[in-house]
Amino acid sequence: MSSKKFRAAIINVTGYAGSELARILHLHPDIQVVSMTGRSAAGKRLSDVFPHLWPCDGPITEQVEGDVDIVFSALPHAASAEACAPFVRAGLPVVDLSADFRLKDREEFESWYRVTHPAPDLLASAVYGLPELHRDEIRAAKLVASPGCYPTGAILALAPVVRAGLVGSDLIVDSKSGVSGAGRSLDIKYHFGEMDESVAAYGLGGHRHQPEMRQELGALREGPPPIVTFVPHLIPMVRGILTTAYATLDLAKLGSDPAAEVRALYEDAYAGEPFARVVPAPPQTKHTSGSNHCLLYPTVDVRAGRLIVVAALDNLVKGAAGQATQAANLMLGLPETAGLGAIAAYP
Amino acid sequence: MSSKKFRAAIINVTGYAGSELARILHLHPDIQVVSMTGRSAAGKRLSDVFPHLWPCDGPITEQVEGDVDIVFSALPHAASAEACAPFVRAGLPVVDLSADFRLKDREEFESWYRVTHPAPDLLASAVYGLPELHRDEIRAAKLVASPGCYPTGAILALAPVVRAGLVGSDLIVDSKSGVSGAGRSLDIKYHFGEMDESVAAYGLGGHRHQPEMRQELGALREGPPPIVTFVPHLIPMVRGILTTAYATLDLAKLGSDPAAEVRALYEDAYAGEPFARVVPAPPQTKHTSGSNHCLLYPTVDVRAGRLIVVAALDNLVKGAAGQATQAANLMLGLPETAGLGAIAAYP
Amino acid sequence: MSSKKFRAAIINVTGYAGSELARILHLHPDIQVVSMTGRSAAGKRLSDVFPHLWPCDGPITEQVEGDVDIVFSALPHAASAEACAPFVRAGLPVVDLSADFRLKDREEFESWYRVTHPAPDLLASAVYGLPELHRDEIRAAKLVASPGCYPTGAILALAPVVRAGLVGSDLIVDSKSGVSGAGRSLDIKYHFGEMDESVAAYGLGGHRHQPEMRQELGALREGPPPIVTFVPHLIPMVRGILTTAYATLDLAKLGSDPAAEVRALYEDAYAGEPFARVVPAPPQTKHTSGSNHCLLYPTVDVRAGRLIVVAALDNLVKGAAGQATQAANLMLGLPETAGLGAIAAYP
Amino acid sequence: MSSKKFRAAIINVTGYAGSELARILHLHPDIQVVSMTGRSAAGKRLSDVFPHLWPCDGPITEQVEGDVDIVFSALPHAASAEACAPFVRAGLPVVDLSADFRLKDREEFESWYRVTHPAPDLLASAVYGLPELHRDEIRAAKLVASPGCYPTGAILALAPVVRAGLVGSDLIVDSKSGVSGAGRSLDIKYHFGEMDESVAAYGLGGHRHQPEMRQELGALREGPPPIVTFVPHLIPMVRGILTTAYATLDLAKLGSDPAAEVRALYEDAYAGEPFARVVPAPPQTKHTSGSNHCLLYPTVDVRAGRLIVVAALDNLVKGAAGQATQAANLMLGLPETAGLGAIAAYP
Repeated sequence: MSSKKFRAAIINVTGYAGSELARILHLHPDIQVVSMTGRSAAGKRLSDVFPHLWPCDGPITEQVEGDVDIVFSALPHAASAEACAPFVRAGLPVVDLSADFRLKDREEFESWYRVTHPAPDLLASAVYGLPELHRDEIRAAKLVASPGCYPTGAILALAPVVRAGLVGSDLIVDSKSGVSGAGRSLDIKYHFGEMDESVAAYGLGGHRHQPEMRQELGALREGPPPIVTFVPHLIPMVRGILTTAYATLDLAKLGSDPAAEVRALYEDAYAGEPFARVVPAPPQTKHTSGSNHCLLYPTVDVRAGRLIVVAALDNLVKGAAGQATQAANLMLGLPETAGLGAIAAYP
Repeated sequence: MSSKKFRAAIINVTGYAGSELARILHLHPDIQVVSMTGRSAAGKRLSDVFPHLWPCDGPITEQVEGDVDIVFSALPHAASAEACAPFVRAGLPVVDLSADFRLKDREEFESWYRVTHPAPDLLASAVYGLPELHRDEIRAAKLVASPGCYPTGAILALAPVVRAGLVGSDLIVDSKSGVSGAGRSLDIKYHFGEMDESVAAYGLGGHRHQPEMRQELGALREGPPPIVTFVPHLIPMVRGILTTAYATLDLAKLGSDPAAEVRALYEDAYAGEPFARVVPAPPQTKHTSGSNHCLLYPTVDVRAGRLIVVAALDNLVKGAAGQATQAANLMLGLPETAGLGAIAAYP
Repeated sequence: MSSKKFRAAIINVTGYAGSELARILHLHPDIQVVSMTGRSAAGKRLSDVFPHLWPCDGPITEQVEGDVDIVFSALPHAASAEACAPFVRAGLPVVDLSADFRLKDREEFESWYRVTHPAPDLLASAVYGLPELHRDEIRAAKLVASPGCYPTGAILALAPVVRAGLVGSDLIVDSKSGVSGAGRSLDIKYHFGEMDESVAAYGLGGHRHQPEMRQELGALREGPPPIVTFVPHLIPMVRGILTTAYATLDLAKLGSDPAAEVRALYEDAYAGEPFARVVPAPPQTKHTSGSNHCLLYPTVDVRAGRLIVVAALDNLVKGAAGQATQAANLMLGLPETAGLGAIAAYP
Repeated sequence: MSSKKFRAAIINVTGYAGSELARILHLHPDIQVVSMTGRSAAGKRLSDVFPHLWPCDGPITEQVEGDVDIVFSALPHAASAEACAPFVRAGLPVVDLSADFRLKDREEFESWYRVTHPAPDLLASAVYGLPELHRDEIRAAKLVASPGCYPTGAILALAPVVRAGLVGSDLIVDSKSGVSGAGRSLDIKYHFGEMDESVAAYGLGGHRHQPEMRQELGALREGPPPIVTFVPHLIPMVRGILTTAYATLDLAKLGSDPAAEVRALYEDAYAGEPFARVVPAPPQTKHTSGSNHCLLYPTVDVRAGRLIVVAALDNLVKGAAGQATQAANLMLGLPETAGLGAIAAYP
């Protein structure tokens, strides 16, 4: 049976997104990882770097080796586009977890990421890999740009009302994230002694995930894209992002019970979605730990005429490796939920 | 020398605010605790309930005993007003850490707290105990209502721009709090297994600290009080509140560098304040752990015309027991900083 | 295909062990949960109590309903034996996660648990459900007593040397556990504010898991059972137990490199075991989070003639629900690893 | 008044021990810090490196500047001896927080620390700075070697029984530490993502704090020094060490209630000590957070004839900066508790 599985490569398996992908694909019924690359770890085995992945193991090489049917890249931006381009050009399905193909506008990318785009010719064909918005395009795509962890929650939180024209241009996204979104890089900021029992805002001068939110929300309606104020916060936990989104509601378009109407709108928008779910009470991020779900709770501060939507997800799963697997399933014609049945580990 | 100290009573020393007050006053050069009451713990000694307070110790009684010069109450609302009233009426200085005397409007209090106010006649003379706004009134007061932990950060974060008329009526306060603000009461929500590695919003239907913010910010300018959308979040830490406040700036009133102008406004507003400080980088709550400081970082998202202010404090100190001590110092004619010199413990 | 699955009941699904079992069995290829009971939650749906389990859901009833092929009980001791007995007597395979059938000696049970054993007649046929020691008996058993979380690590840590006669009678087991082992019950000890940033020993007067260790280790050799000093510690984490076991080695029975010899003994003892694994470096509990693995690291303090073995596991998986599933697989003639392929979630 | 204070220098203020010393001395009534050195931070101000220390501030220089009455060094080993030596030779009182002068035996030091001792001639006059064992020598000393964080708890836990000849040579010290003991250095081990929700043993091949324990405990009785098996563990917290010490008791020397006798021995040994205290229940490390106390709980596993002692302390205070201050007080003829009155912050 395993001979019938799709053969996958993971480029840069040695970060948190790459190793999470290895973990998820290890139990995937239809995809098997046959090649894994690393940079400094090339020559080692996966279990040397990540003992926790055992019995998922294998050699880490510098380049993708052998025949593969699909390529995942978990490299940092710029390096990722460079590594993906040959596979895309060779016609292989590629899911890029980096930011390289998320922004349609090359100049916007280059201004936020301060680097020359290594493969701008591929931008036009790349699909933003959020299945709840772009399912059919992902099915047809050869290159999918897997969304950022923050945009996944923020876009799912705001898409229904933006599409319905119920909110103005004026959006606020206040997100609280665990540390794993920042990867394994060493920085005194991520030292346990500095982070535990503490919370801080960062990126107040502008965070790279903000233009993704604007692009995707802007595409949902006519007119100029919304203005998104995005403030991420680092909180003392490992996995999970909670996003609290605020927008001024056009109450004139709603009836006497705006909260119920808004809620119905969300339930309708996500009816049938396997991984986006409107929940009856404000969600905890822990309700999604290790699962591919995004839990959404919309409500209205009627006095202020303000929509509040809370979205919870696991940044390494629905915010990274799980969402990439979901896209791969669509690209390969597999059931969208294949390999993604894990329920959150709680407590 | 200790005979010259002011003699203080702590009513309900057995919660987190009461025990923190005992801890702070233990090192106070001019105030000594001579009477401590508890409810279920009456008859025990303080060290039976809180071994960590040793060598600060003494009997816990049902009622205040002996002669005292000042009374602090850390009882829950309603019970607190009832316990404080006789002392206020007897002319003793009283600092009430509960919500009972914070809202000037009895009806508003009764509607939020769903209880009949036990001493409405005292409301008129009570002073809201935020020294940065009401220093002189506190000096002259016999009854001080020590502010809530959330309002302390939110009001300090927004007061300068509200007073200056630079923002509209439309304010958002997104706060992230450690668990100690909820006290020692048992609830599955505060179980380590449920709270660790998780974050959630709560109070989405309306939180009791919101009217405090509106009252105090509203008093800073003419016209109707602002509309405050307040969303608190419980994050996996013990002490500390980080508040991120958002408001639409009237850019027309500002020049070419609104961020610098706003920053100068805050520096000016808090110049000389011993415990409110404008900091050069976004603060961590841990920078205030155990200290009476509130650290403020104002900035502007110019593209969106939006003010963002981050405020960090220790909810048990500047948000409760430290602020109460600060008020007591003012009421007793002591140096405002007496007993409050502790620097944050970090890491 | 699901019609061919074994039909399982979970008695008391509403604790941490019960809900973890629901989580694991949800992805089991050959077992499906068809009946779930609760006590106070009877009448609700599983997702009302545990939103995180969605889409695993179903009604919670007071009694097991419908035809089932196997019964798991996650009730507390005494209640569990009472609930299990009818099923055992009816010939159904039963896995009891409580302590009721772990100790062979009724009097010892009654003295540690201070309760009259509700079904002492079943003790003789019950098998201690540690597959690494009792695989064949579990295969043949109708009633399996799933081991305690602490004994699982301690017994796996010491069994090879006890069996080989390399250590004296004098054993020390120092364990560090996350809070989930204590269940969901409310106690100020488990309040986040009290537990975070703190560690303490408990059970110093004697812990109920100690006789399990003595019984199982004692059965591995002739002579009187060993004397086990067991000190558990509660540390600020949710899942995971790290056990550090100490024993005086009989160095005369070992050659010039006792550490290597001891290591070889452990590798030999656990060769082929799917879930007990000797690792090359001291393990972190996080390497087992959500997986059914127990990681073992034996070494020798040669100067002191002392064996040190470190064992890491997830108390809710290999220490509870995973181990129960492993036993059920054996009892039902399924592959021992069925449904237990999950790799640790890390970080 | 401040002109009468002793003038202190802190060499290497930029680590956790150095900044904790600055924090403690900021409130010291009789010592003021007049010079602070750093290495990479020379030229900056203290508040640039540690914003939390404000309003404690001042320039960081490369060398000690101005006249000082006492020198504290918080440099790493080897560098510290080198920096301290000139001050010692000039007759100034010096408290060295590094390991350089803790071990009397130069060869033992050099073999554990793998470096040539920079000032072996000063070893003979150095005093091990544990006041509970060496109070009078510290009073008379010019050079005090402040004990390691682990040895402080371990030695206080075992000294009374070793001195009384109640235990054999065979000691086990199992310690659980927060991360701050490892300092601010960057290492993936101390990354929040790797450390949170996890515990591991380390130093299993031999930890440098073990010979300190042996030296100091060995000096308490005739005959060869005891053999100490020491296993430290890193647990997910910032401050605090809990040590669980095990020793075989000579029950023949005790009467019918060994636990009570042992407890009385400890209470007697530490009667009158301001910072070592025998407590009635197993202590939490959090009971000492920010205070200079070491809490001790001795008990006996009678069945096994084994002494168990639990010791809790804050590794940065009694395990480092507080203990150094305590020694300095003694050296300067000040009250031993001066500046050390802070009570633990809890929760």
